[in-house]
Amino acid sequence: MEKKTIGILGGMGPLATADLYRKIVEHTRAAGDNGHVRVFIDSNCAIPDRTAAILRGGEDPVPEMLSALRNLEKCGADCVIMPCNTAHFFLPRLREATDTPILSMPEITAARCAERYPGRRACLLATRGTLEAGVYDAALRGAGVDFLLPGETARDELMRLIYEVVKASRPLAPEKENWSALLEGLRSRGADYFILGCTELPILADTLLCPGPFVDPTLELAKAAIRFCGYETTD
Amino acid sequence: MEKKTIGILGGMGPLATADLYRKIVEHTRAAGDNGHVRVFIDSNCAIPDRTAAILRGGEDPVPEMLSALRNLEKCGADCVIMPCNTAHFFLPRLREATDTPILSMPEITAARCAERYPGRRACLLATRGTLEAGVYDAALRGAGVDFLLPGETARDELMRLIYEVVKASRPLAPEKENWSALLEGLRSRGADYFILGCTELPILADTLLCPGPFVDPTLELAKAAIRFCGYETTD
Repeated sequence: MEKKTIGILGGMGPLATADLYRKIVEHTRAAGDNGHVRVFIDSNCAIPDRTAAILRGGEDPVPEMLSALRNLEKCGADCVIMPCNTAHFFLPRLREATDTPILSMPEITAARCAERYPGRRACLLATRGTLEAGVYDAALRGAGVDFLLPGETARDELMRLIYEVVKASRPLAPEKENWSALLEGLRSRGADYFILGCTELPILADTLLCPGPFVDPTLELAKAAIRFCGYETTD
Repeated sequence: MEKKTIGILGGMGPLATADLYRKIVEHTRAAGDNGHVRVFIDSNCAIPDRTAAILRGGEDPVPEMLSALRNLEKCGADCVIMPCNTAHFFLPRLREATDTPILSMPEITAARCAERYPGRRACLLATRGTLEAGVYDAALRGAGVDFLLPGETARDELMRLIYEVVKASRPLAPEKENWSALLEGLRSRGADYFILGCTELPILADTLLCPGPFVDPTLELAKAAIRFCGYETTD
């Protein structure tokens, strides 16, 4: 079978793009360079903030997303993935604009939650844009996943960690206690496990190593794309 | 000033490509997503092995390298960088085939060595392809850098670490003693510092944390490309 290629519509943000790409490489079963998937990336950091567009009438990110999508098409990508959960709010508009399949991170994640934690309650950790626009709601309901959303204080804390720490390239280690307290508070509200539903959060979780358990949508998306292209994953 | 963009001719190997891209993101002075350089990547893992082509008449890698270069041109890259030292053997052929500037990792590294360690002796750690084709020689001599090359046994050990460990995605931690012994042996032959002249080696060095000092060509290339595009580096 002819092997397929992956296009990453990236830059939302750039560290999350690097994280997704590294996860694709690390989770492909390959004995050397030539066993890996060909990957095209446009890390277009000019894409306007997705949460600002959804909640506060900020600049529409779709034109810059389409600029990247056109580049991936020119390269010949067989599928497209986006390392930004909030960006999936705009997925229907992007899908209308291309014949290239765009894999949905929320749908892939919801299927994994249902398979791995049947009957348990998820808590969706995400930006206000993702939470308030309900980016994951239909996917989780469709897969029969029980879930709760963070309250107002927890949402503020998540926005701070995402924007003022990870996206601002600030040191992560001093945030360990805050991150742990956030998770503990949500656990006491009934969360059995956590969906790291913003691509900056796996970077935080992988570094701070607080107890989860976590479902990492970036990792699930990486594995789904590897398999889509006809390669095997390492697990 | 209009900011420029970077094209990464990658896949040689894919982990090294991920490492270079992450270093570009981490070393750009930026307050949020929109402060970063736009980066295009073609991680073309079908590019045949460069060392095999140079030393053993293996398949010519240039056609697949040109396939990636054309994709980067289509995306509009203002400069091109390659996260593979051995691939720089083919740099003259690539430069003939494009008007887009391709930054040279050996030249950038040699300039950094001269600036940072004047009067000290470097040891070039690299694949047999890089060492035996003399990929760094002209650049180091041109910058007035005194250097020695690993002997036969050390070359075998470097090839094992690069091909059978890093490129084969095997665990790095068990190699700590071997890596340390390799460096110690070269130090006793007169090396004052080490050039990590294969893009798999910074991955090993950053994980195993043995004493250097090291010059990391991947990092120097990342910083040179950031500055080429009109952005500031963090250091």
